[in-house]
Amino acid sequence: MSRMNAFRIVLIEPLYSGNVGAICRAMANMGFSDLTLVAPRIVDGWEEGGKLAVHAGGLLQRRREVATLDEAVADCTAVVGTTARLGLYRQHVRTPREWAPELLQTATRGRVALVFGREDNGLENDEVARCTHLIRIPTSTDYVSINLAQAVMICCYELFVAGGVFEVPGEKSPPAPAAQRNRLLTLWRQAMLAIGFMHEEKADHMMQGFQRIFSRGVKSEDDAHIMMGVARQSLWAAGHNTRWRPPEPPGGSGVIG
Amino acid sequence: MSRMNAFRIVLIEPLYSGNVGAICRAMANMGFSDLTLVAPRIVDGWEEGGKLAVHAGGLLQRRREVATLDEAVADCTAVVGTTARLGLYRQHVRTPREWAPELLQTATRGRVALVFGREDNGLENDEVARCTHLIRIPTSTDYVSINLAQAVMICCYELFVAGGVFEVPGEKSPPAPAAQRNRLLTLWRQAMLAIGFMHEEKADHMMQGFQRIFSRGVKSEDDAHIMMGVARQSLWAAGHNTRWRPPEPPGGSGVIG
Repeated sequence: MSRMNAFRIVLIEPLYSGNVGAICRAMANMGFSDLTLVAPRIVDGWEEGGKLAVHAGGLLQRRREVATLDEAVADCTAVVGTTARLGLYRQHVRTPREWAPELLQTATRGRVALVFGREDNGLENDEVARCTHLIRIPTSTDYVSINLAQAVMICCYELFVAGGVFEVPGEKSPPAPAAQRNRLLTLWRQAMLAIGFMHEEKADHMMQGFQRIFSRGVKSEDDAHIMMGVARQSLWAAGHNTRWRPPEPPGGSGVIG
Repeated sequence: MSRMNAFRIVLIEPLYSGNVGAICRAMANMGFSDLTLVAPRIVDGWEEGGKLAVHAGGLLQRRREVATLDEAVADCTAVVGTTARLGLYRQHVRTPREWAPELLQTATRGRVALVFGREDNGLENDEVARCTHLIRIPTSTDYVSINLAQAVMICCYELFVAGGVFEVPGEKSPPAPAAQRNRLLTLWRQAMLAIGFMHEEKADHMMQGFQRIFSRGVKSEDDAHIMMGVARQSLWAAGHNTRWRPPEPPGGSGVIG
């Protein structure tokens, strides 16, 4: 069972089923499952909601509908309101990222409601007064009003990320070790001399450039194999389909560094 | 001019104008302004897009439409692809939060494209191959496919937050200093004795409870004034509308601590 199941998303008097559906999908994306609507005023039927929920239709079906905010949050030990406005009661506001660790902690011992206001009118003052925590989502000062479904997504996303369960699926190939990196550079030096990309007297200088590029770009053993393959192929091509020998350098020193 | 103006949001063959409109609003929320569509396939006309853009209609009007991804990103020094799939080319993926500092840095010296794939089919392999960076948005393993507009919002939000320009508008009242906190506790002790909430012999113990609650709840000078007002009013009420005197304690010691 996901840690996120201790969180309840509460929507106050939502107007558009499309938003509710998008919220179901966002909740499912982030591992949330408890959705309660307070006195919904849906004006567009539920078809759009089902469409935007996509594979989270079950969550949409299982939504709870209640008449009042008090009823929606009665069993919650924390009630987190989201607001873009300042004013009475609205001074103690933090960003979702700032609140996330504390809310996750609280959610280990009780249910936590995230309360979102009306599309057209946000939360009323008496609703804000019922909140134990207030969230303000960072925005540009030019346009502070965020779409309801986007606001829910950002809050769920911040909690999910703070929960720390997600890791980007790792690189399958292990990181290239130093010895392999050295072999790559040695081979590359030989190849660049062989194809006449650089002369011996400039080789150290040019190799610094390759070293810089490879240090950033060649991360894994697979990466190193690819670039070593390039060098070997260059050596082969420079040898004109015969076994590779050091080419006659233009300066005549004949020694490969 | 916002730092975010160095970023370009590129949508590949978007299907739904509602998503494009919601993306315009999300971009405006986070201070972005450069939107390019590659070969849009809009199936629902542009009415829904205008509706969902709300106050970002200008951004929607100013969108650029081009025929190919190459054209869309020709002047960009970094091309950041978003992908929920793994596979060829897709190993070097980080979360938007992990990439954000580097991308902001890159954006000080050149244009950065954030490329989002089709609603129905994401990015093709040859499009992923054109990307210098790959992003994967953290999601639950149960439902990894995020709505296009939500994906754009999360990426823009992460860059905006990493930009560090947003601060939650501060508490107007300064934090309560220690001396004021002490006055509050002294006054509260007197008041709680006066109204008979506690007796002198239990006062130290009970005051620990108030101290704990006030340390968490009374943060600002305004908070402290409110709670001192409560104490003063209690003392007044206990004095029955006369000047307050210490009440006769039940135990008879008569001394207020």
